[in-house]
Amino acid sequence: MSGQEFDPASITVLAFDIFGTTVDWYTGVARQAAEIFTELGLGLDGGAFVGEWRDRYLPSMARVQNHERDWAYLDTLHRESLDDLLRQHGVAEAVDEAARARLVRAWHRLPAWDDSVAGLTRLAGRYVVAALSNGGFALLTHLAKDAKLPFDCILSAELARTYKPDAQVYRTAAGLLDVAPEQVLMVAAHKWDLDGAAAAGLRTAFVERPREKGPDRVADRATDVAADISVTSFPALADALGVP
Amino acid sequence: MSGQEFDPASITVLAFDIFGTTVDWYTGVARQAAEIFTELGLGLDGGAFVGEWRDRYLPSMARVQNHERDWAYLDTLHRESLDDLLRQHGVAEAVDEAARARLVRAWHRLPAWDDSVAGLTRLAGRYVVAALSNGGFALLTHLAKDAKLPFDCILSAELARTYKPDAQVYRTAAGLLDVAPEQVLMVAAHKWDLDGAAAAGLRTAFVERPREKGPDRVADRATDVAADISVTSFPALADALGVP
Repeated sequence: MSGQEFDPASITVLAFDIFGTTVDWYTGVARQAAEIFTELGLGLDGGAFVGEWRDRYLPSMARVQNHERDWAYLDTLHRESLDDLLRQHGVAEAVDEAARARLVRAWHRLPAWDDSVAGLTRLAGRYVVAALSNGGFALLTHLAKDAKLPFDCILSAELARTYKPDAQVYRTAAGLLDVAPEQVLMVAAHKWDLDGAAAAGLRTAFVERPREKGPDRVADRATDVAADISVTSFPALADALGVP
Repeated sequence: MSGQEFDPASITVLAFDIFGTTVDWYTGVARQAAEIFTELGLGLDGGAFVGEWRDRYLPSMARVQNHERDWAYLDTLHRESLDDLLRQHGVAEAVDEAARARLVRAWHRLPAWDDSVAGLTRLAGRYVVAALSNGGFALLTHLAKDAKLPFDCILSAELARTYKPDAQVYRTAAGLLDVAPEQVLMVAAHKWDLDGAAAAGLRTAFVERPREKGPDRVADRATDVAADISVTSFPALADALGVP
């Protein structure tokens, strides 16, 4: 991807994407949404709904990144696309303010993939391990605490007041940790994120998470992504980096 | 201090000062400085030296806070006051670049007080526990990792590009964690820090650390500090807040 030989010894920081890479947003939000819809007596399918909600994720952030609108928190973007989606499904009247707040908050509490904690624990033995997500600082702090993810620090696109894949997000992260971009390995399950990281001078590790978008949608596959390292779990990343 | 009754149930975030409150900077830096001075064949006393170095800490930050100079990292301020101090002791020639870098870096690796990890672990069971120090983001990340301090996130004055006791530092911390200032309890061993936190609308807990400045200097004492809570250790803070 970068055209330069990859040397694990040049890396000091591992920056982990969160939604889909470290935690299973599909299962987590679908379950919480289904619970809320059932309480409200609505026949909406939680899984299908969260898929449509997530479809609005990148476009909503792109408008901030392209300066079409001022900085807005991910919670705000989630809320706007939720309101839009509920209108589209003709259930705007049936979902009150409290339920909408709970739905937005569902993204703050998500289950880690089975291998995430074990892999992060191993990797933290050698590297600084940081969360680096488009989720807000508070959201990521809540999420990491709840899922017991052993990050050394929380970094967020919020600290750069723009969104990945804007180079500024990756460079702000490297700057705060006082390292050069090429000393950071961005770990993600998404091609667009790794392409952005590489363009900002970071090194890249792809983690294939085939169930990321639920049973009915296709996630990014290793064959489609050019990265310095390509693995299928966090422990496999530790193996690839030679971390015991 | 704030004039309002203190209710532990109103608190969601505990923000911990680091140098002197959570870690023993005096012992840590004195030991590393003594080692370096011995290697260089210098007769300087590590403990006395670090005391003089620390005396330059607040004045150097006040110049940033008062806009007498642009934002500068704590490492930069430490380095400038170190250079000044070495000149003053007539040993500028004897301490080379590598030794100076090691001395500045000594502040990145400091021993926790004996009760810090146990207290933080208990408190993290109920609250979001954050580091909130004038140390840089990278410094605090290294320090917390090395001392195994179980913080949920690292916050730093660097994120506000000014220094405590500037209200902006405390408010930036509350804003990033998406809480009101009065939902944050600032925990510190220094009157100036708690006064700044209270002025910014935070609640305050004083932790008396009588050995903070080493054997020859007097640290802030409970009798001199007005705070919502006053304790002598982190486990005592957990007791005071009713955290099991």
